[in-house]
Amino acid sequence: MGAPVTIALDAMGGDHGPSVVVPAAAIALIRHPDLRFLLVGDSARIEPELASHEALAKKATVIHTDVAVAMDAKPSQALRKGRWKSSMWLALEAVRDGRAAAAVSAGNTGALMAMAKFCLKTMEGVDRPAIAAIWPTVDAECIVLDVGANVGADSRQLVEFALMGAGMARALFGIDKPSVGLLNIGVEEIKGLDQIREAAAVLKDAPLPIRYHGFVEGDDVGQGVVDVVVTDGYTGNIALKTAEGTAKQIGEYLRAAMGRSLLARLGAVLAQGAFRALKEKLDPRQLNGGIFLGLNGIVIKSHGGTDATGFASAIDLAYDMASNGVVKRLASDVAGFHAKLELEGAA
Amino acid sequence: MGAPVTIALDAMGGDHGPSVVVPAAAIALIRHPDLRFLLVGDSARIEPELASHEALAKKATVIHTDVAVAMDAKPSQALRKGRWKSSMWLALEAVRDGRAAAAVSAGNTGALMAMAKFCLKTMEGVDRPAIAAIWPTVDAECIVLDVGANVGADSRQLVEFALMGAGMARALFGIDKPSVGLLNIGVEEIKGLDQIREAAAVLKDAPLPIRYHGFVEGDDVGQGVVDVVVTDGYTGNIALKTAEGTAKQIGEYLRAAMGRSLLARLGAVLAQGAFRALKEKLDPRQLNGGIFLGLNGIVIKSHGGTDATGFASAIDLAYDMASNGVVKRLASDVAGFHAKLELEGAA
Repeated sequence: MGAPVTIALDAMGGDHGPSVVVPAAAIALIRHPDLRFLLVGDSARIEPELASHEALAKKATVIHTDVAVAMDAKPSQALRKGRWKSSMWLALEAVRDGRAAAAVSAGNTGALMAMAKFCLKTMEGVDRPAIAAIWPTVDAECIVLDVGANVGADSRQLVEFALMGAGMARALFGIDKPSVGLLNIGVEEIKGLDQIREAAAVLKDAPLPIRYHGFVEGDDVGQGVVDVVVTDGYTGNIALKTAEGTAKQIGEYLRAAMGRSLLARLGAVLAQGAFRALKEKLDPRQLNGGIFLGLNGIVIKSHGGTDATGFASAIDLAYDMASNGVVKRLASDVAGFHAKLELEGAA
Repeated sequence: MGAPVTIALDAMGGDHGPSVVVPAAAIALIRHPDLRFLLVGDSARIEPELASHEALAKKATVIHTDVAVAMDAKPSQALRKGRWKSSMWLALEAVRDGRAAAAVSAGNTGALMAMAKFCLKTMEGVDRPAIAAIWPTVDAECIVLDVGANVGADSRQLVEFALMGAGMARALFGIDKPSVGLLNIGVEEIKGLDQIREAAAVLKDAPLPIRYHGFVEGDDVGQGVVDVVVTDGYTGNIALKTAEGTAKQIGEYLRAAMGRSLLARLGAVLAQGAFRALKEKLDPRQLNGGIFLGLNGIVIKSHGGTDATGFASAIDLAYDMASNGVVKRLASDVAGFHAKLELEGAA
């Protein structure tokens, strides 16, 4: 066990605030005893929650503020009104000032990204930060980005997403040269947009620490064809939500089918262990968190409506990212890439 | 039973050609005895198949040609080389000349769309044809378009997609004023692309035979939030394939989970009726076919790798579309819409 890892939690973000964030921290602490927490928010709501988590109370510092960013706040509003005092901002500030290795918030995504860019600044050599998601595959997991930080992406940004996603795969999955695919459609000759073709040309030839696979289609993502799937934030967000929706829909079909006859109900009882395993596998709380990549610091966005189990897995993710020094690795990857491009340009 | 409905089948398209297409026609004929077929392709391969389908043989006319469009042909190649003689082209020509009410092909999508546009021409008042898919929802089905005819779409095209999808929903589902949603992402303030916002403004105010719902997200599609989901062909294709991939992936999880313990295996045996029902519900062959909308004629694209069951459901779709006079209805919707816009412009 190395030095403690301190994570700043926006205790006021999400639909439930401290009543989810504090128990979540307690769960994460059991899994990672070297965790320390900064709990940022209304101490009058945090302290009573802490009272029933003795072990956590010893490892947590409360940073009081009355100001919370509303879940429906527009990013520009969040930046204008009392920016310096909100729990979201103070959590990010702790990362900026080195008091925390990562920040986790279940607050609204747009506001969090706007504040994170303003507070932590975009990493040198990166045009635009992206949000990455960890996507369950048949055998393991892959990383998909961007899933909603931007609505479009030009070829340079797509290449940077590839680089950042690969850096994350190296750090989280321990893969030396992650395979990277560009999300595209399979119709011949109208194969995708210009920026995707241009990004493909760069990725194919550039001396990057990745294995460029080529184009992948929507059904390749869950099959685990590549370690990293690169797309623009609009498409990535829709793909992610479509997959989540389909999983939910099939769960509803399955429940309906298993309740239809006496034999099926009996079968369901006998197989309940298997169903539990399946449910766990598909539980969106197990992979809860959008990872902001391309900033000078680690920021994890948890689902707003998640419970303590879900928020705890977002903390786990922050812990893994911090322990693996993802930001430093990414910065060196990006710098290396640009240096090589310049060399090539000069040659 | 009204007048017979004649469908032209490209017997050489897809991975299996006549060995799938002919048995599929036989299946569809049992369901719809008023069907008649033009079987276009190599008679030396079609006739032996027909020999074992006596009832079908009486209702089918073989149109012989040696020329087939290769599955990997580029659209431009397909248009250049022997365009006038291929089974794909001759099937479309039968629709153009009024000898068939619809054409069905499992050949390659790009070539089929290029040929269909060239042969049947785009409907007056429509900028670009789209491919629509029927998407299973929790309770019923919805229509999603475009799923791959184009890579982008401007606001006018999105509005036309809405109109065409609604016309199809009216004809196929019998809904008077179908609800229509624009696929978008839910992040505040970076909510989608300009063209989507512009299309929303038009759909909100225009006196169309639709009920405009607003934006929908990826997870709303399968929940059946709206009857028609409108998006560009790039995003729609990726959403469709992602959903298909997710369904396949969950099927694999389920099989693995049910085989894990003796109890689970026993449960699976007892529940096999329920599993069969679920499998059927998720069977992509039951909803097999991309519908080309916005042409002067009905063209259905079946999956290339499908079997006779799948190809038969593509024929069913063609039959339903033809019986409901979808093309005429669409043409009148589109003309009505443009007339109203002009009136508004003049006012």
